[in-house]
Amino acid sequence: MRLDELGEFGLIARLTAGLEQRPDVGLGVGDDAAVLTLGPGTDLVATCDAQVEGQHFLLSRATPEEIGHKALAVNLSDIAAMGAEPRWALVSLLLPPTLDVETLDGIYAGMRSLAREHAVSLVGGNVAATRGPLTLDITLLGSVTHGKALTRAGAHPGDVLAVIGSLGAAAAGLLTLVTRPGEASVPPLVRRQVRRALFAPTPLIVPGRILANCGSITAMLDVSDGLAADLGHLCERSGVGAYVEAVHLPIDPAARAVAEAYGSSALDLALYGGEDYALLCAVRPDAFARTQQAVRAVNAEMHAIGTISPQNEGMLLHRPDGATELLRARGWDHLREEPEASHTAQADEVSEPRR
Amino acid sequence: MRLDELGEFGLIARLTAGLEQRPDVGLGVGDDAAVLTLGPGTDLVATCDAQVEGQHFLLSRATPEEIGHKALAVNLSDIAAMGAEPRWALVSLLLPPTLDVETLDGIYAGMRSLAREHAVSLVGGNVAATRGPLTLDITLLGSVTHGKALTRAGAHPGDVLAVIGSLGAAAAGLLTLVTRPGEASVPPLVRRQVRRALFAPTPLIVPGRILANCGSITAMLDVSDGLAADLGHLCERSGVGAYVEAVHLPIDPAARAVAEAYGSSALDLALYGGEDYALLCAVRPDAFARTQQAVRAVNAEMHAIGTISPQNEGMLLHRPDGATELLRARGWDHLREEPEASHTAQADEVSEPRR
Repeated sequence: MRLDELGEFGLIARLTAGLEQRPDVGLGVGDDAAVLTLGPGTDLVATCDAQVEGQHFLLSRATPEEIGHKALAVNLSDIAAMGAEPRWALVSLLLPPTLDVETLDGIYAGMRSLAREHAVSLVGGNVAATRGPLTLDITLLGSVTHGKALTRAGAHPGDVLAVIGSLGAAAAGLLTLVTRPGEASVPPLVRRQVRRALFAPTPLIVPGRILANCGSITAMLDVSDGLAADLGHLCERSGVGAYVEAVHLPIDPAARAVAEAYGSSALDLALYGGEDYALLCAVRPDAFARTQQAVRAVNAEMHAIGTISPQNEGMLLHRPDGATELLRARGWDHLREEPEASHTAQADEVSEPRR
Repeated sequence: MRLDELGEFGLIARLTAGLEQRPDVGLGVGDDAAVLTLGPGTDLVATCDAQVEGQHFLLSRATPEEIGHKALAVNLSDIAAMGAEPRWALVSLLLPPTLDVETLDGIYAGMRSLAREHAVSLVGGNVAATRGPLTLDITLLGSVTHGKALTRAGAHPGDVLAVIGSLGAAAAGLLTLVTRPGEASVPPLVRRQVRRALFAPTPLIVPGRILANCGSITAMLDVSDGLAADLGHLCERSGVGAYVEAVHLPIDPAARAVAEAYGSSALDLALYGGEDYALLCAVRPDAFARTQQAVRAVNAEMHAIGTISPQNEGMLLHRPDGATELLRARGWDHLREEPEASHTAQADEVSEPRR
């Protein structure tokens, strides 16, 4: 069987079936990061994510600094989703030998700048040549108070479903790139905002750490595959359903402006676009107001977007027009030839990166 | 400037110049692994190494099980070289979507089997598609008693230079593969031994841990690039020179047999071949006998091959014929078009993997 027939999630299930785990593994495969017990008091949190030229970025579109920033940012976002503090990164480079050193200088400048901002040390890595595309594969290690890591499992019916950050801007950024210039009029400031969302996302480390210490979050993950797909991951791991109020989704104003200019649906960008690196969580209802205050104190905003429901009710979306429909957990599968129907499918027409 | 003009080590120096390090970084870039302080008592040890199809292995030559075994083994060897206990692995896969799932099944079977042998848990990873070659990028995490990790720095003039394990068999394995069948007569058993050394090396985890606890090792690393090159790394990081007695090198008997059959130099295989995953260390001379005993107790053999000398004496090789010559730290540079002169350069003629 070819991998593109099996798909990413089928492959992971197949390769990791029946894995033995040491007793010091708090959480293994299947969440944003692993949680490992090295000693008393503090848990180690570990994640890795690769960015491949042609799949995740194009050297012709993003600057080297943006590519380096994003390669680290997507890992920081996974650490944020665990409520952990990022500490150390290992950078594995797969390099076409004909690549310009100056390009790598720029990539490292972007990565080192973001690392400095989050007090992350680059402590190791690897260099290998490849006849394939430039690939940046980063492993990020962090720590969290023992037992405090937030996972995808644990949401209960009745919990408030909430998003920290905003949705849709990264997908809007992709939309402005894949459509030929002049096809839509978008103010330069808005164009810069959505480009930044796509190429230099801001990982929500500080809000994530606040949430891990609140004691009110029952499940959390970051929104990388798209709200609908990531909500699907949360529901699956927690064994729950969810009800989403579309009018309460924190759609980025710049994403709304781009959607309007391009005749796209801002709601679709927010639900299916992905790469927002917002945090999606379930909150104990009695503690929601207090938790929202705590997040606001670090200059972030937590938005109630719905509720957690019993598993048999599935995932439902209450649309702005009053209709209620099943919310399909469609999103990206990194191995299939064709992405499931999505606004970003058009990206393929001009060889744009998929996630 | 192109990467193949700058070279691997020039690139690493350039990208990591002036890196800030957190106070909890015991050891950063430049050794076999990083050493990190998570809490009192125990240090975290972290390393990563990638295996790229066409560079490090060929799907047409190695079995999937061998490929999976080796991808983990090279990382285990780095942890062994620190004297640490391996604990957790993250596996990042870069996959051509047309790859057969059965191939990956076999790779995982090989990897999981070796992981089980060393009580390593696979705790996470990543799956990404690539239009390039199949790549397995593994990050391995381990632990060591605080302050006990063995590094490349610390060797002193007068220390005994020693090798645990044997040399030359992996390069002999490559020699049997790149030469057309029938060119030399090698007994099937010997052929299997050198093939195993090349494709399924044994990381010296237990001897490494013994050595970390002996208190007599001043510097250590694993022999991956070739004895001469890796001795060069040790001398550079320790600020010393070295004197090597060729007749004392533990050349693998199978490597000797292959070298004879192919008209090659067994000494050259041992000095420049690489991928032996033996351990190379400097030992306090007053503790050598005791240390050798401790290693023997875990069924490994420590061989004195020379002495550490002052830096200004350089690296010298006393050849079996009585001549003394400068030992050049030649070895593989992963980014240069042409490997430095070496017996394995002929591998390129038939598109064999380089390291």
